[in-house]
Amino acid sequence: MSGDEASNNNAGMAGSGSEQGVIVDRLVAMILAEPRARHLGDARLPSPEAIGSLVEMIREIIFPGFFGERGLRAETLHSHIESLVDRVRVVAAEQIRGALRYHPDVSTESGECKEVQLNELVADDCDRAALEMADAFVARLPLIRWALVEDVQAAYDGDPAATHVDEIIFCYPGIEAIFAHRVAHAIDALGVPMLPRLIQERAHRRTGIDIHPGATIGRRFFIDHGAGVVIGETTVIGDDVKIYQGVTLGAKSFPKDERGRLIRDQKRHPTIGNRVTIYAGAVILGGDTFIRDDCEIGGGVFLTKSVSEGSSVRQKSPELVHREQRK
Amino acid sequence: MSGDEASNNNAGMAGSGSEQGVIVDRLVAMILAEPRARHLGDARLPSPEAIGSLVEMIREIIFPGFFGERGLRAETLHSHIESLVDRVRVVAAEQIRGALRYHPDVSTESGECKEVQLNELVADDCDRAALEMADAFVARLPLIRWALVEDVQAAYDGDPAATHVDEIIFCYPGIEAIFAHRVAHAIDALGVPMLPRLIQERAHRRTGIDIHPGATIGRRFFIDHGAGVVIGETTVIGDDVKIYQGVTLGAKSFPKDERGRLIRDQKRHPTIGNRVTIYAGAVILGGDTFIRDDCEIGGGVFLTKSVSEGSSVRQKSPELVHREQRK
Amino acid sequence: MSGDEASNNNAGMAGSGSEQGVIVDRLVAMILAEPRARHLGDARLPSPEAIGSLVEMIREIIFPGFFGERGLRAETLHSHIESLVDRVRVVAAEQIRGALRYHPDVSTESGECKEVQLNELVADDCDRAALEMADAFVARLPLIRWALVEDVQAAYDGDPAATHVDEIIFCYPGIEAIFAHRVAHAIDALGVPMLPRLIQERAHRRTGIDIHPGATIGRRFFIDHGAGVVIGETTVIGDDVKIYQGVTLGAKSFPKDERGRLIRDQKRHPTIGNRVTIYAGAVILGGDTFIRDDCEIGGGVFLTKSVSEGSSVRQKSPELVHREQRK
Repeated sequence: MSGDEASNNNAGMAGSGSEQGVIVDRLVAMILAEPRARHLGDARLPSPEAIGSLVEMIREIIFPGFFGERGLRAETLHSHIESLVDRVRVVAAEQIRGALRYHPDVSTESGECKEVQLNELVADDCDRAALEMADAFVARLPLIRWALVEDVQAAYDGDPAATHVDEIIFCYPGIEAIFAHRVAHAIDALGVPMLPRLIQERAHRRTGIDIHPGATIGRRFFIDHGAGVVIGETTVIGDDVKIYQGVTLGAKSFPKDERGRLIRDQKRHPTIGNRVTIYAGAVILGGDTFIRDDCEIGGGVFLTKSVSEGSSVRQKSPELVHREQRK
Repeated sequence: MSGDEASNNNAGMAGSGSEQGVIVDRLVAMILAEPRARHLGDARLPSPEAIGSLVEMIREIIFPGFFGERGLRAETLHSHIESLVDRVRVVAAEQIRGALRYHPDVSTESGECKEVQLNELVADDCDRAALEMADAFVARLPLIRWALVEDVQAAYDGDPAATHVDEIIFCYPGIEAIFAHRVAHAIDALGVPMLPRLIQERAHRRTGIDIHPGATIGRRFFIDHGAGVVIGETTVIGDDVKIYQGVTLGAKSFPKDERGRLIRDQKRHPTIGNRVTIYAGAVILGGDTFIRDDCEIGGGVFLTKSVSEGSSVRQKSPELVHREQRK
Repeated sequence: MSGDEASNNNAGMAGSGSEQGVIVDRLVAMILAEPRARHLGDARLPSPEAIGSLVEMIREIIFPGFFGERGLRAETLHSHIESLVDRVRVVAAEQIRGALRYHPDVSTESGECKEVQLNELVADDCDRAALEMADAFVARLPLIRWALVEDVQAAYDGDPAATHVDEIIFCYPGIEAIFAHRVAHAIDALGVPMLPRLIQERAHRRTGIDIHPGATIGRRFFIDHGAGVVIGETTVIGDDVKIYQGVTLGAKSFPKDERGRLIRDQKRHPTIGNRVTIYAGAVILGGDTFIRDDCEIGGGVFLTKSVSEGSSVRQKSPELVHREQRK
């Protein structure tokens, strides 16, 4: 609004039109002067909305008939999956292309790159790199599906309140979180920056479960209830692990370099063996902390040391103060 | 994409079109071979989207003028409520019909049923059963509304930060959670499988509060803040109970049968009396644990034993280690 | 549905049409008799949907190019921001107008007001008051943007897993929560009722972080992970404070007046100094509790007393019970 009477919503309130002009000028000047919190001149950024639809399409491939199109038939399944895979590939390539501007080999100014090193490939340019990465991700889809079928079964086997595996697929937040993690982790493993974190935070927002894409998680993983679970970037988890709400697998403290800046590459989070159960609210911290196979960690336990195989660790409950007949 | 050049998005990247064909073939073969994570040939499944709109319509009936249509007048209220109730009945019957495939009397193969035993009725077929259950649910709506009016008042009386009951209806997550629970519990009580859990998990996702539909909750119930609250399937809660964020009313451990499978029907979660307050982060576990009337359970208390009437239980705070002037 | 056969979905189920009529009648009678949970005859209520779009427009102004329209150019930035600010002003005035019915000077019956006292202004009527408040809010936008740029930088400096400030803007729940708080707090400071709480609870729902709009929060504030954080209405927080998931800054107990009603205006929540870090799950309660500058409060600490400058407070971990080779 430029003080023009015609488009002016504050007729009769003298001055506030031009005051608003002053505020707009100030905002624009701030935005131009401070580049950290704006993006000009480039539509090639990751898009939260496009990432949302990408994740939903992948979910339709992994659990066909549950989400998205209903009434699938065996005869039409092939063309349905083919069309979904094709769209996933295109959207994934676009979003990876947007994310490559954050790749260390790419100039952050222009968002262009001459060469991007993939795990084993070297691509000439970002567009090509994005497409190759999207292809490599699509090639992982069968393995991701297999892992999730096992996770669903583990959830059913581990929860006496579950009445059918379909219930788990339809609505368990733990399944949505591990689904998003297995997708984000596969993309992270290709060396794609940023995008895996956007996928993870979407799941975090939807489930309350926060698993960093860098975390390595074994087979048949189950998180029950789940709100408040935090699993850090360098966590390693074995097979058949079960975790309850409010569990943190975190860092003890952050080492800094001689200039006082955080050191960003280091094992900061724990290692969990096979067949370990961690009950609600337990906090396990530190990159050297190793909870070995077949352990059971009780609710609310605070652990910063390793635990030997087959141990059960419980918190000796703090003394309770009972006061009866307080009325 | 079948490797056909015309529809091929990776022109110039030799081979990846047919590679993608191989991946699609593998996915389709997996989906056909592994029935646990797909649904073919049947559109009659519960639908998360339809359930979302069902819950929102019920919310419009319970709190008219707050959600959905605005500017209602006393003269048009009857036709407005009549039309909403009618739509609720139709959508509820459809979703119950989809859920009945998980009823123990229904063959899971075809999703058809000859006879479904309702609480007191026996219906000849699933369509009829679904409609009767929807009618029985609709008949509960006045009681559900009454209970929620009391819950809203309890929230206002219990929170010094609340300035008006409307604030509570508009935005308290605790009210959204108990609203969804009272709806889900009523449907659960009719013997409808699956659907109550989908309603619950929608509310869990939106509020961070996880109340199993099977839990029995008395009048004037208030959850403040609420993120991380977990209330298990066989919990029983009296009247005038107040619960804060992060409280778990859970199971101690899961008994297994002689074949090592979880036993799924058993009182595993605590019983809470009348006029009990449970502060943030308290964990109360076990089917035999009974917190009797007028108790106050302090923040962070971990309880697996019963508490006599009128008691106040506080955690003796663990010793704190103070280190001053650390710099 | 009025029992009319034509529109009747339960043909063949004798009686349920008229039963439904009875239920509708009962619901309508309840709604007319119980005013606490309905709004008739007034469309001027705050609208959760309109508030959602208001918040998203403000986010587009604060972080241009990240959310909403992409591909902005320096030349068109001014007209883009101008148009957004104009829409924010209009929608904010509408929503403030709806919220003013909850202002203590406004008759709650009719929602009309003759005079509303703003901080320094007195407006003749609610429409004018709403517009002046919207203008005053818009005038705060540059300061809100500046505070958020600093918050984003603080998040980057404080999290070793962050790879770029853009990642923080795109997806950190802590940034979404402090963004919504700074907006809600500015509107709250103008004396607008209700609306700030609706903005806060929207962010709470999306992030699991619950910051009351009344809380006063200093510069460069960072919440990591964040699920389960609760910051009460009368909390005061200094500069450079860092908080982890599950932290509660809450009230000890609620004083009641001689008639047993809660006293609603009083400092009930703690004061936190500058450069304080509070680790996961710590609970700090009470209006007299003052955590002075440069303190570090360990994970899970339960504090109801003040702490002197530069202290580090850790919980002496409760004894753990290890049982090895349990199998």
